Amino acid sequence: MEPQTHLKPGRVRPGGRTAKVRAAVLDATQDELVDVGFHGLAMDRVAARAGVGKTTVYRRWRDPGGLVTDLMVELADQSTPHADTGSIEGDLRANAMSVLGAINDQRLGATLQAVIAAATCDPAAADALNAFYLRRVKEWATAVDRAVERGELPAGTDGAEVIRAVSAPLYYRLVVTREPVDERHAERAAARVLAAARAGAFAEAAG
Amino acid sequence: MEPQTHLKPGRVRPGGRTAKVRAAVLDATQDELVDVGFHGLAMDRVAARAGVGKTTVYRRWRDPGGLVTDLMVELADQSTPHADTGSIEGDLRANAMSVLGAINDQRLGATLQAVIAAATCDPAAADALNAFYLRRVKEWATAVDRAVERGELPAGTDGAEVIRAVSAPLYYRLVVTREPVDERHAERAAARVLAAARAGAFAEAAG
Repeated sequence: MEPQTHLKPGRVRPGGRTAKVRAAVLDATQDELVDVGFHGLAMDRVAARAGVGKTTVYRRWRDPGGLVTDLMVELADQSTPHADTGSIEGDLRANAMSVLGAINDQRLGATLQAVIAAATCDPAAADALNAFYLRRVKEWATAVDRAVERGELPAGTDGAEVIRAVSAPLYYRLVVTREPVDERHAERAAARVLAAARAGAFAEAAG
Repeated sequence: MEPQTHLKPGRVRPGGRTAKVRAAVLDATQDELVDVGFHGLAMDRVAARAGVGKTTVYRRWRDPGGLVTDLMVELADQSTPHADTGSIEGDLRANAMSVLGAINDQRLGATLQAVIAAATCDPAAADALNAFYLRRVKEWATAVDRAVERGELPAGTDGAEVIRAVSAPLYYRLVVTREPVDERHAERAAARVLAAARAGAFAEAAG
């Protein structure tokens, strides 16, 4: 099975005129986030980089928080759907690989880290980050629900908590201990969460 | 059992003259990190806030990365040692509560988040963060080693990995999904990791 990537690393997709302006502005926002981080994100520079009038950018996105919020919505829209490999082992492994693909993608990984940094001091960035990840968690939680229906995991297993737990050790290495994250870590994360889930540690009665 | 705090939230301890200068400078560094973040950290403001000559601060710490590095060494020095409750269940719970205490402590939690943010774009901050957490992980891993000796966990269980796994879901909520973290999450983190460890998912043969 090919490891699925969490998100397609490509650029924001263009469409009609308004969509093209949005695509250009969000691409420029992502470029600036990667290059200078949230603290360096300036509306005028984003407008210039996108080749769009400043007035348009200020009117539509208002401030850097508005740009980041819209970028995270777009990145969530572009994300690949959850896997359906037929077994919870395969699905959790696919989830771990998709997270690995996202954080190790040069452009997307740098974007996520810039927004994680921004979220520590900017409420709009924090809200955007929360919405992005909860949407991803909810999308993948269905894989756990199917496993419960198939009898692979105990009834009452909390799918969203299982999905959070697969991502957690990978992000912990990425942003907290600042250690490299590779396929081995992704596989271990999935296997360990699966062992705990099978033991009923993610079922509601477990507290 | 009283939940142990990960680190004493108190101020840097003074000692002789050199130690007093260091304590004042590191306190001011921590205050500035909490107030303005790493991007706002300026040597001159730290010197003024500490009541110490600029020359001293530049000579001894060189740049903001030098200040953060020394602050993280001091915070690790002040940390409480690992728990020894007599059971791995108690020790992992104590570890989770100590992490919870640190991240929910107003001053210490804000400091850790500021350094996590800084580490996304500053190599010195990243090194300081890595050294701080690996020292904490190593300190607590001994609790797992003792559990293996007592026969509570399978031979070959990787203590450092167990300790990382207890912290991971708490930090994931704190800095990635930006969700509140409370005692229930700490207890669940410890219980889930324990279930996986008992199942052998942290033993070397598990990959």
